[in-house]
Amino acid sequence: LVIDEQGSFLVGGSIATAPGTHDPYNPLLPDGQTFRGDHAYVQYQIPENARALPIVMWHGGGQMGKTWETTPDGREGFLNTFLRRKFPVYVLDQPRRGRAGRSMVAATINPTPSEQTTFTVFRIGVWPNYFPGVQFSRKPEVLDQYLRQQTPNIGAGDDNVASDAVAALFAKIGPATLLTHSAGGPPGWQTGIKAPNVRGIVSYEPVAFVFPVGEAPPALPTGYDGTLQSPGPEVPLADFKKLTKFPIQVVFGDFIPTGPSLLPGPDRWRLRLIYAQQFVDKINQHGGKAELLHLPKVGVRGNTHFPFSDLNSDKIADLLSKWFAKYNLDRYPRRHDDDDDHHH
Amino acid sequence: LVIDEQGSFLVGGSIATAPGTHDPYNPLLPDGQTFRGDHAYVQYQIPENARALPIVMWHGGGQMGKTWETTPDGREGFLNTFLRRKFPVYVLDQPRRGRAGRSMVAATINPTPSEQTTFTVFRIGVWPNYFPGVQFSRKPEVLDQYLRQQTPNIGAGDDNVASDAVAALFAKIGPATLLTHSAGGPPGWQTGIKAPNVRGIVSYEPVAFVFPVGEAPPALPTGYDGTLQSPGPEVPLADFKKLTKFPIQVVFGDFIPTGPSLLPGPDRWRLRLIYAQQFVDKINQHGGKAELLHLPKVGVRGNTHFPFSDLNSDKIADLLSKWFAKYNLDRYPRRHDDDDDHHH
Repeated sequence: LVIDEQGSFLVGGSIATAPGTHDPYNPLLPDGQTFRGDHAYVQYQIPENARALPIVMWHGGGQMGKTWETTPDGREGFLNTFLRRKFPVYVLDQPRRGRAGRSMVAATINPTPSEQTTFTVFRIGVWPNYFPGVQFSRKPEVLDQYLRQQTPNIGAGDDNVASDAVAALFAKIGPATLLTHSAGGPPGWQTGIKAPNVRGIVSYEPVAFVFPVGEAPPALPTGYDGTLQSPGPEVPLADFKKLTKFPIQVVFGDFIPTGPSLLPGPDRWRLRLIYAQQFVDKINQHGGKAELLHLPKVGVRGNTHFPFSDLNSDKIADLLSKWFAKYNLDRYPRRHDDDDDHHH
Repeated sequence: LVIDEQGSFLVGGSIATAPGTHDPYNPLLPDGQTFRGDHAYVQYQIPENARALPIVMWHGGGQMGKTWETTPDGREGFLNTFLRRKFPVYVLDQPRRGRAGRSMVAATINPTPSEQTTFTVFRIGVWPNYFPGVQFSRKPEVLDQYLRQQTPNIGAGDDNVASDAVAALFAKIGPATLLTHSAGGPPGWQTGIKAPNVRGIVSYEPVAFVFPVGEAPPALPTGYDGTLQSPGPEVPLADFKKLTKFPIQVVFGDFIPTGPSLLPGPDRWRLRLIYAQQFVDKINQHGGKAELLHLPKVGVRGNTHFPFSDLNSDKIADLLSKWFAKYNLDRYPRRHDDDDDHHH
């Protein structure tokens, strides 16, 4: 791994100032003091002879940049994989999460036991049973790493705050593609609307979508209690159309119920997969280039909610590389002495 | 930067189990579910042709691994510097901080304005004035990065929990040296006691020390309100003696008051500098190899509480390299075909 440059920074965020005047001799008084927060934390690595468009990797709910690093079973994650494939990579912790923990809102955090639910919601199996053929190691130490790879929200999640910070990242680094995961999906769509430098979005199992005002599909009832689950917020048509200016791929894994289920977590993925197709159709109806990649439909089986770190992650990476190639998002920079090159 | 291997993992920590039996159909009930927390998060990079002993870098209070990455003014931090100098580097977020946010204890976190106090406590100046000659850029965007480079504790800080996790790291990775900063200092001494793989400790401005039972120096009164400030906890002599088995360097920067001050933050550094000398003397009295490096005394001026990321950080890095060399902590691995080599 030959790295030309690596580093980290904070980007976006806001600042509050308490009224009054600061007195250095009374340091515990907030008067006249400031508080900065709601920025994103970003680590980047740029490999030697890098491709032109960086990849920005955005984690999901309860996660942080670790999502894209070493897999729970100790293999290289998407960060290393795509560095080796010569992409500059920016891995972020969204505002109020991980190393971006300075939150503009107060937080109460309790250590609530919920890891068996995580196991089922993230479709490793139905606790305590692993799904037959699941692409996840049965070694207890792997599950231990996986479950420790979580970190709480510090203050309520806010897609607007999160997408503001990531839009600021795109403004800083220039054109790039965006990978999102799960709860990073919805603020990812918002970022695609806010940041003209977004050149493509691949979203792994986003929890919701966006639709133009008046064009959202009906909210469907869950199988376990019949409450309606929203397909996602409506946005002005002009905003939605910004998502048609670049290619989009939505990826879902295996073990998603095909009919109503009494298991709440899995059942919600069933509805999201339905909404995913409706979102993709809506993007294309408005002139965009979206596709739904439901992995079992192309013969890729056993994937959990984390396809990019599952045991077959190399296959998932190859599918991503193929998509990058399809849209020339893996192009190399135009060489300075190369003015006659019209390939890109 | 040629990297042989890089990755991340969680290490140490504990696990709690709620009584009862988990029912996947009632996922919100904690019954029978587990909660893992209080682990450390660790990122590592191993450069090509690396030296034998890695460096473990441990941040201070309100900080995380970012401490050692890109400096607030955008230069390479100690992580990159010592990778370039061929050390494997492990950068950690201690339990309940940053990407190690799963805390076994509840937390309430409020966005309390306190950045002007931070400015003064960390000795950039006395707000709003920068110290003349301070090794810190006056550009507002640098101060902005510096102040955003903070993240709160999730649950009370606990030196025992923190040192348990870092001792688990040393058990995993083998012999290494430890850098600590500020509030990372005290659990760093505890780690030196707990982890036989610690081969040396360099502590930048530790907030406290340890002494053998009955041998602690008297707590001294602060200059601003006369309360006594502890030099640090007492530990059994047998534990203290473990700190005499490897070299120790304690480093302090500039702008520390030479007499009692009415400014609480700066005044506390005055007392810690006194305790630092007493700690070093006590280690040496018991047969150890400790030294206090007060930077202005060797002509290195202008350093804040963060010497390793100050504008003269290259000079600070050179002083560290010199200390590594003095104790052969920068040696290269014994080559397999090198059985007659007795240099190390």
